[in-house]
Amino acid sequence: MAVRILTDDDVQQQMTMNEAIEVMARSFRQHATGALVAPARLAIPLDLGQLVFTAGSAAATDQLPGRIGFRVYDTAHFGSDHRDELVAVFDIADGSLQGVVVGQALGPLRTGAIGGVAIDTLARADAASLALVGTGGQARTQLIAACAVRRFTSIRAFSRTEATRDTFCREMSELVELEIQPAATSREAVESADVVICSTVSQTPVLEREWIAPGTHVQNVGPKFRDDSELPVSLYEQAEVLVTDAPAQLDDYGTRFLVANTPHAGRIVPLGEVVAGKVPGRTADDQISLFCSLGLAGTEVTLADELLRRVPAT
Amino acid sequence: MAVRILTDDDVQQQMTMNEAIEVMARSFRQHATGALVAPARLAIPLDLGQLVFTAGSAAATDQLPGRIGFRVYDTAHFGSDHRDELVAVFDIADGSLQGVVVGQALGPLRTGAIGGVAIDTLARADAASLALVGTGGQARTQLIAACAVRRFTSIRAFSRTEATRDTFCREMSELVELEIQPAATSREAVESADVVICSTVSQTPVLEREWIAPGTHVQNVGPKFRDDSELPVSLYEQAEVLVTDAPAQLDDYGTRFLVANTPHAGRIVPLGEVVAGKVPGRTADDQISLFCSLGLAGTEVTLADELLRRVPAT
Repeated sequence: MAVRILTDDDVQQQMTMNEAIEVMARSFRQHATGALVAPARLAIPLDLGQLVFTAGSAAATDQLPGRIGFRVYDTAHFGSDHRDELVAVFDIADGSLQGVVVGQALGPLRTGAIGGVAIDTLARADAASLALVGTGGQARTQLIAACAVRRFTSIRAFSRTEATRDTFCREMSELVELEIQPAATSREAVESADVVICSTVSQTPVLEREWIAPGTHVQNVGPKFRDDSELPVSLYEQAEVLVTDAPAQLDDYGTRFLVANTPHAGRIVPLGEVVAGKVPGRTADDQISLFCSLGLAGTEVTLADELLRRVPAT
Repeated sequence: MAVRILTDDDVQQQMTMNEAIEVMARSFRQHATGALVAPARLAIPLDLGQLVFTAGSAAATDQLPGRIGFRVYDTAHFGSDHRDELVAVFDIADGSLQGVVVGQALGPLRTGAIGGVAIDTLARADAASLALVGTGGQARTQLIAACAVRRFTSIRAFSRTEATRDTFCREMSELVELEIQPAATSREAVESADVVICSTVSQTPVLEREWIAPGTHVQNVGPKFRDDSELPVSLYEQAEVLVTDAPAQLDDYGTRFLVANTPHAGRIVPLGEVVAGKVPGRTADDQISLFCSLGLAGTEVTLADELLRRVPAT
């Protein structure tokens, strides 16, 4: 029997961001019931690289068969254009391989789609202005996902690297069919934004708490460690609504996490439970909500499984 | 670019056991120099299964490019005929996927070939009689590997399950072109054997120390834990030569290992160092040697890489 392999072309052709967001929302509802099992990721350090494995299983439903699988990436090759990640999907009933997704496209699609679920769940329904701090690869899929769940009339983007920022604005304006304004400073970008997406690699805060107006939703995609964080501790302290997608991953961070061992860590609720209506998310328009994006394990498997179902076996 | 996938058919058609033993011997020489990095395996327990990852990297040589990769298997599906394992091979220079081997054939070929290297390195050169205790899947590849490195004139096999034993003897006699004698008891099989291969799932010793004659080489493929061991502690105590393929895996077993916290644990030397001539193996014909087979990480990657080189890209 031929093994089914999907590449970046398949990922890009077979699934829109809106569809990916739907698959992720379904996965979060499964996570809330315990049907999606999503432990922390594990790293195997090797002399010439470091393989990181993130694994999960999803129980069978009326519509879908049960799946178990993982994603792997090598942290030593993040800078390589030729690097491949791999997502493998096995059937839970007999352990047979359903297929493999190879390349670089699935990871950002999934992280973006998770961001879309978070914005859809946590941002005000009337959110109209979006700010992006950081304009790398993650920012692109976060932006597309944000535009899939809210109708923005204003988008501003800031990056420390002017050239990257301008390329981002030019290329992404076309894609989201709205002129993205380059911001001269982070403050200019985030002040008066309803939704702020931070997806930098900055080790020090890229914005100040005072710049974030009441009612804003903030996504923390980049670093969130005590000694390495793109957001200030004070924003976690000020946010009334704190949510993460991956509680087990957060636990695994332990004392390294930005607000570990503070009352604020205990306030963080799982996105799945908010999506499922088990715990409240935003309860007032003037609250600041903050999404701590870690990457729920198993979501690569459910997304890859959905893709494999769409590409007919040959 | 098409991703290269090998299946069980490719594994069986592209490589003989002798060739696999050569690849494994090369890997052990690399392990002895530190060029093959082989940490302990990691398990990710999930509700509906448990994925085990064994990863390794091999530095580039004059002849071969550097590789990094892993094997994964789900311990919940060992009983399934349809279960697939997966071995992925990435290039160390740019992180690109070189190919994937999917199915069930590579694992036993590799474990058998490692056993072949161990017998070739540790058994007496004139070893003529072979005993097998346990006649499952591992016994088959261990037998083929043993016959690849020594000229046996007598082979006896014992299994607690008579039907399994007889099927094994019938099927494998043809394969190795020597009549394998079914033994009525374990003692009958191992007494006076020059090489003894234990590959059972027994939680209690399947043989007694007194049955093992001076000069015998024993392979411990099955359980080797304090509370779950196919061999008696006394055999580890009596063996003058103690060797393992995977020192990091043995370290990871910690106090669970059969002779942990005894002077005998400290006597165990790495097979790679014996193969490379860095430490002695057998130094006298009347010594008992014991090979503690754990599965050196990274060897699935080097074996898969060799297979991928043999199957032309289409």
